[in-house]
Amino acid sequence: VKVSKREAILDAAAAAIADHGVRGLRVEDVAERAGVVVSLLYYYFGSRTGLLRATMHHSNERAPTLSPADLEESDRTAFELLEQAMLAELGSSDAVRQNCVVWNELNASAVFDPELRKEFAAVAKKWSREVAAFIRLGQHDGSIRDGADAQEEADLLTSLVEGLIMRWLAGSLTRERARRLLRTSLRDRLPA
Amino acid sequence: VKVSKREAILDAAAAAIADHGVRGLRVEDVAERAGVVVSLLYYYFGSRTGLLRATMHHSNERAPTLSPADLEESDRTAFELLEQAMLAELGSSDAVRQNCVVWNELNASAVFDPELRKEFAAVAKKWSREVAAFIRLGQHDGSIRDGADAQEEADLLTSLVEGLIMRWLAGSLTRERARRLLRTSLRDRLPA
Repeated sequence: VKVSKREAILDAAAAAIADHGVRGLRVEDVAERAGVVVSLLYYYFGSRTGLLRATMHHSNERAPTLSPADLEESDRTAFELLEQAMLAELGSSDAVRQNCVVWNELNASAVFDPELRKEFAAVAKKWSREVAAFIRLGQHDGSIRDGADAQEEADLLTSLVEGLIMRWLAGSLTRERARRLLRTSLRDRLPA
Repeated sequence: VKVSKREAILDAAAAAIADHGVRGLRVEDVAERAGVVVSLLYYYFGSRTGLLRATMHHSNERAPTLSPADLEESDRTAFELLEQAMLAELGSSDAVRQNCVVWNELNASAVFDPELRKEFAAVAKKWSREVAAFIRLGQHDGSIRDGADAQEEADLLTSLVEGLIMRWLAGSLTRERARRLLRTSLRDRLPA
């Protein structure tokens, strides 16, 4: 598989953040991990913040997706696919954990960095709108209760997922318990 | 009001974290803010991590409390007091926001710092147990439904509160919307 240098840098940045956090991120280390010269990294991303923003989008693209096309190709309901995608956010692979740490770190950094904050908020809202759109599909196919306010449910659900991930990463909930709690909440709130 | 030097240092550390995050925390700046010499800070807390741990406990003590004594002295139900305490976590004062940023930052740092992580997990679990105990009181006074698994509900609720705070601080939810979502979730899940 041929991976572009740009992508290799973003993979290296995500791995570096997962190991040491945004706090510990040095542009030089990322270049070394990716096997490129530091100047190439600045050529692609302009600055450390530019690299963080691109890593956020890269990490977001790797997260479990929810697309209406999946529903057309599947014999399962929108609720079932939504539950599967949400539980996948707390999956057991190293790649999932890495993605969670990166997201959690960029979230924390966004509190203090106005530029990152604006872009982070846009990505988070986009995710929430995608979940809301999927909830509406579930209202059409009869798997999700009609009375639910789709955007409100989506905001609640995505906030809960992020809170559970935070507690899992910080060690106050096991991943298994976090998944069980998420499933309980989903099944109590959404089905028709 | 006479404030001890130890407490002045912890107030200064919390203010410094709220301004610049744990990433930007310099022990020298905290000493300067508190008007003490750096050596006094090391005398009390031993190290930067020691200071972070003490700041976590300090910040935790400032969070809204839930004590069975409040219930005895009040003519309100356990559910009403629980709702009030949870909504207070998303209160409008600068002090609340500062506390939230400090907690969020220490949570993020705990992912990478084994010593902080252990202590952070213990504090988070203690909070969750206190909420569970209060839910049981609500089952006794008839304000919370009997079928609820108190510890499960408490873990869900505290995770949701942390996720909502995270989204508020990172700008993808307004504080008002986060509070409304929290109230909706509480009222849907807990009352008898």
